[in-house]
Amino acid sequence: MKRTTTLTLAAAASIALLPTLGFAQDEGPTAGVNASTDMVFIMNSLLFLVGGFLVFFMAAGFAMLEGGLVRSKNVTMQMTKNISLFSLASIFYYLIGYNLMYPLGTWSIDGILSGVWGPGVLEAVGVTADAADDYSYASTGSDFFFQLMFCAATASIVSGALAERIKLWPFLAFTIALTAVIYPIQASWKWGGGFLDAMGFLDFAGSTVVHSVGGWAALVGALILGPRIGKYKDGRTIPIPGSNLTLATLGTFILWLGWFGFNGGSQLAMGTVGDVADVSRIFANTNTAAAGGAIAALILTQILYKKPDLTMVLNGALAGLVSITAEPLTPSLGAATLIGAVGGVIVVFAVPFLDKLKIDDVVGAIPVHLFCGIWGTIAVVFTNGDASLATQLYSIIVVGLFTAIASGIVWFILKATMGIRVSEEDEINGLDMSEMGMEAYPEFSKG
Amino acid sequence: MKRTTTLTLAAAASIALLPTLGFAQDEGPTAGVNASTDMVFIMNSLLFLVGGFLVFFMAAGFAMLEGGLVRSKNVTMQMTKNISLFSLASIFYYLIGYNLMYPLGTWSIDGILSGVWGPGVLEAVGVTADAADDYSYASTGSDFFFQLMFCAATASIVSGALAERIKLWPFLAFTIALTAVIYPIQASWKWGGGFLDAMGFLDFAGSTVVHSVGGWAALVGALILGPRIGKYKDGRTIPIPGSNLTLATLGTFILWLGWFGFNGGSQLAMGTVGDVADVSRIFANTNTAAAGGAIAALILTQILYKKPDLTMVLNGALAGLVSITAEPLTPSLGAATLIGAVGGVIVVFAVPFLDKLKIDDVVGAIPVHLFCGIWGTIAVVFTNGDASLATQLYSIIVVGLFTAIASGIVWFILKATMGIRVSEEDEINGLDMSEMGMEAYPEFSKG
Amino acid sequence: MKRTTTLTLAAAASIALLPTLGFAQDEGPTAGVNASTDMVFIMNSLLFLVGGFLVFFMAAGFAMLEGGLVRSKNVTMQMTKNISLFSLASIFYYLIGYNLMYPLGTWSIDGILSGVWGPGVLEAVGVTADAADDYSYASTGSDFFFQLMFCAATASIVSGALAERIKLWPFLAFTIALTAVIYPIQASWKWGGGFLDAMGFLDFAGSTVVHSVGGWAALVGALILGPRIGKYKDGRTIPIPGSNLTLATLGTFILWLGWFGFNGGSQLAMGTVGDVADVSRIFANTNTAAAGGAIAALILTQILYKKPDLTMVLNGALAGLVSITAEPLTPSLGAATLIGAVGGVIVVFAVPFLDKLKIDDVVGAIPVHLFCGIWGTIAVVFTNGDASLATQLYSIIVVGLFTAIASGIVWFILKATMGIRVSEEDEINGLDMSEMGMEAYPEFSKG
Repeated sequence: MKRTTTLTLAAAASIALLPTLGFAQDEGPTAGVNASTDMVFIMNSLLFLVGGFLVFFMAAGFAMLEGGLVRSKNVTMQMTKNISLFSLASIFYYLIGYNLMYPLGTWSIDGILSGVWGPGVLEAVGVTADAADDYSYASTGSDFFFQLMFCAATASIVSGALAERIKLWPFLAFTIALTAVIYPIQASWKWGGGFLDAMGFLDFAGSTVVHSVGGWAALVGALILGPRIGKYKDGRTIPIPGSNLTLATLGTFILWLGWFGFNGGSQLAMGTVGDVADVSRIFANTNTAAAGGAIAALILTQILYKKPDLTMVLNGALAGLVSITAEPLTPSLGAATLIGAVGGVIVVFAVPFLDKLKIDDVVGAIPVHLFCGIWGTIAVVFTNGDASLATQLYSIIVVGLFTAIASGIVWFILKATMGIRVSEEDEINGLDMSEMGMEAYPEFSKG
Repeated sequence: MKRTTTLTLAAAASIALLPTLGFAQDEGPTAGVNASTDMVFIMNSLLFLVGGFLVFFMAAGFAMLEGGLVRSKNVTMQMTKNISLFSLASIFYYLIGYNLMYPLGTWSIDGILSGVWGPGVLEAVGVTADAADDYSYASTGSDFFFQLMFCAATASIVSGALAERIKLWPFLAFTIALTAVIYPIQASWKWGGGFLDAMGFLDFAGSTVVHSVGGWAALVGALILGPRIGKYKDGRTIPIPGSNLTLATLGTFILWLGWFGFNGGSQLAMGTVGDVADVSRIFANTNTAAAGGAIAALILTQILYKKPDLTMVLNGALAGLVSITAEPLTPSLGAATLIGAVGGVIVVFAVPFLDKLKIDDVVGAIPVHLFCGIWGTIAVVFTNGDASLATQLYSIIVVGLFTAIASGIVWFILKATMGIRVSEEDEINGLDMSEMGMEAYPEFSKG
Repeated sequence: MKRTTTLTLAAAASIALLPTLGFAQDEGPTAGVNASTDMVFIMNSLLFLVGGFLVFFMAAGFAMLEGGLVRSKNVTMQMTKNISLFSLASIFYYLIGYNLMYPLGTWSIDGILSGVWGPGVLEAVGVTADAADDYSYASTGSDFFFQLMFCAATASIVSGALAERIKLWPFLAFTIALTAVIYPIQASWKWGGGFLDAMGFLDFAGSTVVHSVGGWAALVGALILGPRIGKYKDGRTIPIPGSNLTLATLGTFILWLGWFGFNGGSQLAMGTVGDVADVSRIFANTNTAAAGGAIAALILTQILYKKPDLTMVLNGALAGLVSITAEPLTPSLGAATLIGAVGGVIVVFAVPFLDKLKIDDVVGAIPVHLFCGIWGTIAVVFTNGDASLATQLYSIIVVGLFTAIASGIVWFILKATMGIRVSEEDEINGLDMSEMGMEAYPEFSKG
C-alpha cells in the first residue's frame, strides 16, 4: 500500500494522462462529469471491495489455523477470541482508529473524532457522479472497508501466539488498544502520510506496518505472559502438537487466498492499464512467494529432521507471504520466489530459536509475522531502486520500538488490573471448560 | 434488493444522466451502441456474478454451521441435506420459481412456464452490444444466477432448525415446494413488482423476503415435527451441545463473507459512481452490524451466564447480519452497529424463549432468521425516511401468514403421506447409521 | 477456454467493432490510446484475476475433499502432498511449463526458456496505456496467474487417487514432471494454438485438457502402484470409509465455488456486453450441471442401494462440474442440467466398475475427472454446432495416449529409482507416523 497522498497524486496524474474522452464542445459544460474518471473511480472502489472481502476472509483463516494448532481443550476459547477480536476491531477502528490514522494532514480533535461525533466515514447515500471529482479516487466506504481489514488482521496475529493461557477479557481489552490506537498511530506514519513516508520508507502492503506490528505485540505479550505449563522442562522443549491439522491446512489456504486481496488491493487502483497490470504482477508474485516459502520449509525440514514437517510447511507458506508483502510489485517471479523461500528458511530456524529463549508462541506467529516481516521490509532494497536500506532499517526500529513499548504498557496495565493469565488449574484443565464451560468437540474422547 | 421495475427505471435514469460520450457526428449512426451504457451493463452484471458466487458460498456456510451444531451421529445426514437442498433449489428455481417470481407484470401460463417450455432464462450466446439496449440493465444470466442463490439460502435456513429428526426425502420434498412455489410467489410481491412493493414496503436484501420466510417455514416445520427425544424433560431443557465448534465457527465466517454479496449485490448496480459508493456503504454497514451482533451476544452471555457462550456469539453475528439486511444502505456505521447489536440481544433471549415453548430449533435458525428478520424489517423506519412502519408491519404479517399457511399445508401433506419423522429408535441411534448407513467420523470413538 | 490465437483474433475483432470513442480531432494524435480498449483490457485482466483466485481456492477444495476421504492415519501426509504439489506447480509451471505451453507458434529454445533466462512472463511495472495496444488483450501477469491455476488443478487430481500408499517425494517428483512438461505440452495442442486446435477440437475449459489429463495420470499411477492393502480380498471389495465427511463436503463446496472461476474465466474476456453475458451463461450452466450431477447420484444410490450415499452425491456434483467443463457456454440450462446428471450417473457406476478391475482410487478421482472428462468432451457435440464427434474422439484419444504413455514412463522411472510405494508395515501403521512423524488428530482416540 502506498501512502494516501502519494496515491492521490498518482491517481490524479493517471487520470490526467488518460484520454479525456472528446466531448463534443457543443455539449457545453457537463458539470465536471467525465466518463473515464468515473470508471477509474468505480474500478478503484471495486478493487477495495473485492480486496477487502478477501482480507476479511483471512479472519476465518487465522481462526482455523489457530484452532488447528491449539489443543482441543482450548479450541472453543480460540474460536471465541478470533470472532470477538475481529468484531471489536471492526467497531473500534471505526470509532477511533480510522480517524486517528488518516487525518494526520489536518491533525485536530475534530478530525480525529470525526468518526465518533461527525457524520462518520462513509459518503452520503447515492452520491452523484460529481463525487468522482470530490473524492477523486475511490469511495471512502470502500477505502474504510479495506483499511479496516488490515487493522483486524494485525489483531488476529496476536491471538495465536498467546493462545492456551491468556484470559479472554484482558486479551480483548488489548485488542481494543491495538486496533483503536496502537495500530492506527504507527500506520499513519507510513500510510497516513506521516514522517516515515516522508523519509521514503517503502512498505507496500505492510510487512512492517501490519505483520511486524502484530508480531511485536505478540512477542511482548508472550514475554509478559510466560510460556505454557509443561512447554519447557529441564532445559528441554516439549512439543505440544496441534489437535487438528486439516483445520490448520485449511486456515493456511484461506490466508493464502486472502493475501491476493491483501497485496493486490494495496495497489489501491485498477482503473488504468498500468494499474491492472501491476495488480496482476502482484497476484503472481504473491502466489510464487508463498510457494517458495512452503517448498523451502519442506526441503529444509526433510534435511534437518529427516522428515518433512507439515506445520513448518504451512508456516513456510505464510512466511513467504509475509516476506513479499513489503514489495510484491517490483520483483520478478524468480526474485519473488527467492524472497519467499528465504522467509521459509527463517521460520524453520526461528521456531526452535524462540524455544531456546523460552518464548512460547503457540502457532509460530512471531517467526512468521515479525521475523519475516522484518526480512520482507529489508528485501525491498533488492528489487526496488527507490528503497534505502538505512530508511528501511530505521523504520523497522521506530515502528518496533513504538509498538513494543506501547504494547508493553498496555499488557502491564492489564496484568496489574485484571490479571492476564488463567490459573494453573484452569490452564491444565483447558480454557474451554474453565473459562467457557463448553467443549469444541464434546463427543470425541481424548487420547 | 429493490424491485426489478424500480431498478430498471433507476438504471435507465442513471444511464440517461451519464455523459453520452461524444461520438463524432461523421461516424454516422452507430446502431445504438454506447460505450458508457455498455460499461454500466458490464459492471452491473459483474456485481451479480461476484455477489452471486459469494452468496453461493453461503450454502457451504450453512452446511458447516449446521454440521458443527448437530451431534456427530447426524452429521452425514446434515451434509446430505445441505448439498441436496441446494441442488434441488438450483433445478426447481430454474424450472418453475424464477418464472413464477418475475413475470408478474404479464401473468400468464406462457410466462410462468417460459423456463420449462420456452427458451429459458438466459440470453443467447454472444449477444451483441445492442443487448445493452434490449436488456438495458444487466445480463439475465447474471440476474438469474444471483436470484437463484437467494432462493437457495431460504431453503438452507430450514434445514438447520429441523435437524436430527426429520427424514431426508420429505425434507427434500418440502425444499422443492419452498423453492419452486412458496418463496417465488411471496418474493414476487416485493421483488417482482407486486402489491407489497406498490405499497412502499422496503426490504433491501430480504430480512423478510428471504430470512423470515425461511424462519416461518422452519417454525411451522418444528411445531409439526416436535422436539428431539430428550430435549425437554420434566419441564426442563436439556442442552444438547454441537459436536464440532470449529466447523460452526467456520460456517459463521463463511456466511459473514457471503453476506457482502447478499447485501452488496442487492444494490443491483455498480456502473455509476453513486452505485459503487452505495455498494461500499453496504459492505461497511453489513460488516459492522455483524460485529455489533457478535459483541452484544458476547457481553450479554457473560453478564447473564457469567461465561461467554460461543454458539451465542456466532448466532449473534448472524443475527446482526439478518437485522441489517432489510436496510444496509441508509444507516450510518453507528446506526448499523446498533441495529446489529439489537439483533444479537434478541437471539440471546429468543433461544431460551423458544425452549420454554418447547419449540426445538437445533441451530437457532428461528431466532436468527425469523425474529431478527422481523426486527430488521421494522428497523428500516429508523434510518430510511421512505419507510412506513404500518407498511413494514403489514408486509411482515402478510408474508408471514402466507408462508406459515403454505408451509403448514405442505408439511401436513408430507406428514400424512410419506411421514416426516424418523422412528424413535432411528433417532436415538442417529440418522447417519439408520437412514444413511454411513458415519461422518467413523474412526473417532464417541465419549 | 478458447485457444489463445483464436481469442486474440476475437478480442481484436470485438475491439474493432467497439465504438471508437470520438476523440476530438483537434486533440491530435493520442499515441493510440483508446479508452474503450483500455476498459476491455482492464475487464479481461480482472476476469483472469477473479477467476484465478477462485481456481486457486480449488487447491484448498481438493485438500479438504481428500483429507476427508482418507483414513485419519494418512491425513497429515495428504495435507502435505496437497500444499506441496500446489507450490511445486506454481514454481515449475513458471520456470518451464508456461513457456512450453504458449510459444508454440515460435517454437524455439529461446521461446521455451524465456521464463528461465528471459525477463519472465510478467509485464514491466506500471506499463503505460500503450500496453493495451502492445498486449491488446489482457495483462500477461493475469493470464499467467489464471493459467497456472489450471496446471496446478491437474496435479491436484492425481494426489487423491494415489493416497494412502504412495511415498511423498516420488509423488512430488511426478508432480514436477506433470506440471513442467506433460500438462503444458498437451495443453499447447489445444490452448497454445496447436494441431488439435487447428483441427477444430473444442474443449472450453478443459474436460480433456485438464480433467482427463489428471485422470489419466492418476489411472496409470494407480495401476503401477497397486491397490491399498486390504482393499480387495477374496474377490470382494472392502469399503474403506473416509475419516471426515464434513471436510469432504466442505471440499466439494469449495471446488464448486472455484469452478465458477474455472469455467467463467475460460471465456477469457468480459469487456463487452456479449462477453459478460456469456460469462453469466457459463456461471448459470456450471451451477446447474453440478446440481444435476448431485441429484442424479442421490436418486440413483437411493434406488440401487436403498440408502443415499453422501460420498457419491459429492462426487456426483463434481462429476456434473467436470462434464459441463468442455462446453459450459452453448447449452441451455436444461441441457446443462442433463449433461451434469449423466455425469452423476457415470460416477455411480464407474466407482464399483473400477473396484471390479481392482483399480484402487481412494477418492473417486478417476471416475470424476477421467470418465466424466471424456463424457463432457463428447457432449459438446449435442449443444455446439461447430463440434465434430470424430475430432472430439480423436483428441480425447491423442491426449489420453500421450498422457498415459508419458505418465507411465515417469512412474516407471520413479519406481525403478526412488521406489514409489511405502513399505507394508508403514502403510498399515499409516503414512502420518511412518513418513511424517506427525498425526493430524493426535488427541482423538481411534475407534
